Amino acid sequence: MKKRKADPVPIDADFLAAGILNGDRKTLAQAITLVESGAKRHFDAAQLLLEKVITKRTPSVRIGITGVPGAGKSTFIDTFGMFLCSRGHKVAVLAVDPTSHVSKGSILGDKTRMERLSVHPSAFIRPTPSSGTLGGVSRKTRETMLLCEAAGFDVILIETMGVGQGEFLVRGMVDFFLLLVLTGAGDELQTMKKGIMELPDLVVVNKADGDNLPAARKAVQEYNTMLHFLKPYTEGWTTKAAAASALQETGIEEIWSSVAAFRNHTKESGLFESRRRLQHKEWLHESIKTELLHAFYENPEVDRQLKKAEQDIAEERAPVSALVKELVDTFLNNKN
Amino acid sequence: MKKRKADPVPIDADFLAAGILNGDRKTLAQAITLVESGAKRHFDAAQLLLEKVITKRTPSVRIGITGVPGAGKSTFIDTFGMFLCSRGHKVAVLAVDPTSHVSKGSILGDKTRMERLSVHPSAFIRPTPSSGTLGGVSRKTRETMLLCEAAGFDVILIETMGVGQGEFLVRGMVDFFLLLVLTGAGDELQTMKKGIMELPDLVVVNKADGDNLPAARKAVQEYNTMLHFLKPYTEGWTTKAAAASALQETGIEEIWSSVAAFRNHTKESGLFESRRRLQHKEWLHESIKTELLHAFYENPEVDRQLKKAEQDIAEERAPVSALVKELVDTFLNNKN
Repeated sequence: MKKRKADPVPIDADFLAAGILNGDRKTLAQAITLVESGAKRHFDAAQLLLEKVITKRTPSVRIGITGVPGAGKSTFIDTFGMFLCSRGHKVAVLAVDPTSHVSKGSILGDKTRMERLSVHPSAFIRPTPSSGTLGGVSRKTRETMLLCEAAGFDVILIETMGVGQGEFLVRGMVDFFLLLVLTGAGDELQTMKKGIMELPDLVVVNKADGDNLPAARKAVQEYNTMLHFLKPYTEGWTTKAAAASALQETGIEEIWSSVAAFRNHTKESGLFESRRRLQHKEWLHESIKTELLHAFYENPEVDRQLKKAEQDIAEERAPVSALVKELVDTFLNNKN
Repeated sequence: MKKRKADPVPIDADFLAAGILNGDRKTLAQAITLVESGAKRHFDAAQLLLEKVITKRTPSVRIGITGVPGAGKSTFIDTFGMFLCSRGHKVAVLAVDPTSHVSKGSILGDKTRMERLSVHPSAFIRPTPSSGTLGGVSRKTRETMLLCEAAGFDVILIETMGVGQGEFLVRGMVDFFLLLVLTGAGDELQTMKKGIMELPDLVVVNKADGDNLPAARKAVQEYNTMLHFLKPYTEGWTTKAAAASALQETGIEEIWSSVAAFRNHTKESGLFESRRRLQHKEWLHESIKTELLHAFYENPEVDRQLKKAEQDIAEERAPVSALVKELVDTFLNNKN
């Protein structure tokens, strides 16, 4: 057992809630640390805090951003975020990395990656939460999102990091999903993860500048041709490709127009709200599964029986279903 | 509630075990019905029966068979099964259909589909088990497989039916996986489910007969070229394509030689046994998940609280994690 350190964060939910609702960024950062904490003693405080602020949030649009390697995601978010701030929005940038094994977020890294946005008074950049299970990463990001909205941030950008299932995880927690690509659609598609092209509401061909401009325009056409054959992720919305240059800051306004049109369209059709409701319901049931399995596997009596059961099963000495029933009975009769 | 009918099967585990170990097909059929039963009163008897026979099984090879629509799966299994019987094997044919919504298996359908095999004394054909959850279908098929092996069947053919995730489910319960295709690899691949080409240990181009022979040979080449670029599912084994005609009964012996070579190779390397052990362990943990979630959602007190929780969550009135903790606590304190 590690030696218990002094609490790194105040766990006074009232104090934190007041600061967050007041838009205080330092308090917001502390509250997120509380939510991200794996310690049991922080859980109740974090939940109490969320209860206090959850109904007082700013209406927001949640945008997921993913990209092929080298697509210039950081520069894009820096430019896109600065544009949004200049339009009077408050922008929170969160990152999801289910593959991360770093125990602490790379704050310095994120600050360096988004040079201008990281010092803008209307922006809040939160580094990747510390590693954990897929369910844990998902919970932390969703709860952080709620806290940011309570602190008045009305555009939430959720960036996928690393490889793995990040894109699918993020698609399940945002309103709008943006895929950043480069020129050379054909080659690029070969290396893309299966199913990625079926997720976005907008494909942005980045680095459409200088000598690369003709190739970028061609790539936009190629992507549009391909998207024509795919079922759009959002019913009633046509996923299209557009060109942009984060470096030269061109095409950025058009991207925001597309998000705005999407929001208007889905708010009118009711899909905006119904998708959020569905996402929250899925989150509930995912959490139930995670929590139940966690309680099961952490149960010392179950653990003892399971070791023997695994051996019997592997050798096909005993039928699975009977053993499973015994294990579940043991669990339900030996709660901690 | 439905009126309780008289038990359609004897639930005397000793009687059933004796019959099965004696190779009696009628008893085997009754025992499978017991295993497939959803009734709680049948569960204990079925598990007792499995316990009695599980260590007395015939060493077997379990072969999964899937195919593109129109590939002639039934005729192939009929021919392949007849070939195996003629070689002195006892062949059980089971079907997995996670999408089936028919309440009773189509016995007549299966008998008609495999005209010769269905009346052969060394063969046992079991229709698709009645519908249920993915976990339920998986459990029933795995337990049926064990019963067939206890009754002396040494080749188990598991056929995937319908669309959906059947192929992945079956891949997880067999030693060897066979994909049946037709000529025209390029076109066919377009319509294949994603990831299917990464599953088989052997690809068989069926209907390699008459005018179709040159096209079939070309397809074998095309498939081999493609397989060359894919990582084989089984480490140390090269998945190849071969031509066969179930109608003219050509290429069938070569398929069995391939299975035999595969078995020798994986038995020597230890992979045969280690894969089975892994499959059983996965089955255990899958079953635990299914059983836990089932117990949770069936709990009346949980159900009552969940209805309210779902509403609160959907409207974002309450934080998910706190509600989940409450629900799980309720579950653990209100066992049935």
